[in-house]
Amino acid sequence: MLVLFTDFGWRGPYVGLLKQVLARYAPQVPVIDLWHDVPVFDAQGAAYLLAAYAGEFPAGSVFVGVVDPGVGGGRAAMILRADGRLFVGPDNGLFDRVAVRAHEAAIWHITWQPVRLSASFHGRDLFAPVAAMLAVGKATPEQLGMAAPLVARDWPADLARIIYVDRYGNAITGIRAASLEDNAAIGVQGQTLRRARTFADVPLGQVFWYENSSGLVELACNQGSAAARFDLKPGDGVTVSGETLAVIGPG
Amino acid sequence: MLVLFTDFGWRGPYVGLLKQVLARYAPQVPVIDLWHDVPVFDAQGAAYLLAAYAGEFPAGSVFVGVVDPGVGGGRAAMILRADGRLFVGPDNGLFDRVAVRAHEAAIWHITWQPVRLSASFHGRDLFAPVAAMLAVGKATPEQLGMAAPLVARDWPADLARIIYVDRYGNAITGIRAASLEDNAAIGVQGQTLRRARTFADVPLGQVFWYENSSGLVELACNQGSAAARFDLKPGDGVTVSGETLAVIGPG
Amino acid sequence: MLVLFTDFGWRGPYVGLLKQVLARYAPQVPVIDLWHDVPVFDAQGAAYLLAAYAGEFPAGSVFVGVVDPGVGGGRAAMILRADGRLFVGPDNGLFDRVAVRAHEAAIWHITWQPVRLSASFHGRDLFAPVAAMLAVGKATPEQLGMAAPLVARDWPADLARIIYVDRYGNAITGIRAASLEDNAAIGVQGQTLRRARTFADVPLGQVFWYENSSGLVELACNQGSAAARFDLKPGDGVTVSGETLAVIGPG
Repeated sequence: MLVLFTDFGWRGPYVGLLKQVLARYAPQVPVIDLWHDVPVFDAQGAAYLLAAYAGEFPAGSVFVGVVDPGVGGGRAAMILRADGRLFVGPDNGLFDRVAVRAHEAAIWHITWQPVRLSASFHGRDLFAPVAAMLAVGKATPEQLGMAAPLVARDWPADLARIIYVDRYGNAITGIRAASLEDNAAIGVQGQTLRRARTFADVPLGQVFWYENSSGLVELACNQGSAAARFDLKPGDGVTVSGETLAVIGPG
Repeated sequence: MLVLFTDFGWRGPYVGLLKQVLARYAPQVPVIDLWHDVPVFDAQGAAYLLAAYAGEFPAGSVFVGVVDPGVGGGRAAMILRADGRLFVGPDNGLFDRVAVRAHEAAIWHITWQPVRLSASFHGRDLFAPVAAMLAVGKATPEQLGMAAPLVARDWPADLARIIYVDRYGNAITGIRAASLEDNAAIGVQGQTLRRARTFADVPLGQVFWYENSSGLVELACNQGSAAARFDLKPGDGVTVSGETLAVIGPG
Repeated sequence: MLVLFTDFGWRGPYVGLLKQVLARYAPQVPVIDLWHDVPVFDAQGAAYLLAAYAGEFPAGSVFVGVVDPGVGGGRAAMILRADGRLFVGPDNGLFDRVAVRAHEAAIWHITWQPVRLSASFHGRDLFAPVAAMLAVGKATPEQLGMAAPLVARDWPADLARIIYVDRYGNAITGIRAASLEDNAAIGVQGQTLRRARTFADVPLGQVFWYENSSGLVELACNQGSAAARFDLKPGDGVTVSGETLAVIGPG
């Protein structure tokens, strides 16, 4: 399974151009669009999203990750193998959280060179063909790159800010609910939110936080928009009260 | 054919997470995204959309319908079989119009239980695997649920309000054009709209109503936006003049 | 490979309804969504986009193009064969730039008639089934239409205006970078932009122009939005200074 995770938006030709490469070089492999509207340029926030959602996909999945504001500059291109999944994209921190949370992880800097390498669209020219070759078993990471050490950026185990707002107005943070005590309260924009199990457990219109279906702390409102109510947007900081943010190992 | 009909929007990970379940459990079945931006939480409006568009898909199609504000609460999960098509989703009225308009319909409440059932994402955890099993013939509705009576909500045969606005600014109502006289006029936001066959039959910029390509009354403008012109949005009521709204049988 | 290029947006049922036709009549052919949010009704701008991006797809690809404000009126439906690719859609200029830039091109007006032809959705009823028949080799252009002369609209070889703005705020013009001198400056909204190779070559926040990954002149900003900075939108004219716009042959 090939999995796409980008900040392209469902706009313009970018997703399609990437997919036609995959359709040519890995025609039998299903392609799943995991996420295309992660906030633009925010490799750090995206790293916490990807780490929370990658586990939904089976071992053997090959991810193409493109949140790549440094494309065409000096940043390396990389392959990460983590707990049986492969990740192809820029070496800018996007895969750091997946790597540090994995039981086993290995990294290669891509040395394979495509016939055409544009200065601005490595998703199409480099990451997609590399991912396709890996997905069909035509090449191994060792054949496409050079082993590199895992040197994760100095980011916290959990990221105490909003990293995504969905169509319903739910605001996803970079904090894993499992790292909090059950009675933890979340502060945001001067408000304090209490935990609930899910939407149906609070009155209509009430804003709360809950562990979302992939384990992250999410600010939500029963049949309303938490984002609209408290003017929440990606980048807004949140605080955890009732306890300190537990750091449970690397990650 | 598996058909998706949701209010997720083409945003966030929800469509992708649902599709990876289908790709795993029904890998040979094509998946079509019918609609992902029906207005959030509006199961009633969605019911009239789905009833108008489901007939575009061949017999044997399995629909996954997710407009599910009550997820995690007491509402049941259901399978509807209607005129040879199957529908899997919440029992909140979403499938009512399909059911009452069908020549033959049967309903089951889902009793099958997944290994993981989150409190907030039954599309991924329950509806998608059930739909996949049905689509590949691995299970029957009888094996996955318990027969239940068809008790439709007390909703009108046609819904006299706007239930969707598309990218062009066309406003779709819940009224079937076949239920109106040819000379019927539609009132909306203090305006009265006359019927035309299609865009090209009226002057540039004129607002009118017509029978859209799936049979619903749609408010439109020739090379302009009816929604922008008259500030139309989902939920706005419309009136029918020149005759009363004919009720043609159940549904 | 079937390639979709429309102004439907990723909204409503239109893309899905088109795809279910393709899934039925060309089930083995992969379908790629190249572009669904080209500006509505703008067949001219879309023509320059399509001509720039069609070459990314392999010979044998069949494109369905739907930017069709005249649907249901008198405009013809057409098939274009250009350099081994086929294009199916309205005869309103959408395919003109592809045709005039091709080394060899042939045109047919579609005479095949579907069982159902709605007045407003020829993408579903006419273009998709024709494209599917062509893609699987069930019919040839000669069998589906009548040969017609290539009479391109009197449009310039390059189009000096913004024809698309992407999610990042990059503004794509209808000018091929290869038609400009290296030192050409682009004027827009009273600003003058200099050329750079790519984002990483200019300071953060600087607006510039560059040859995008498919050869068009694109106005961009390093980790910012050129569109937001200078209020750029589709339709805005641009000027080329430092030289005159070179016209290199037809198209």
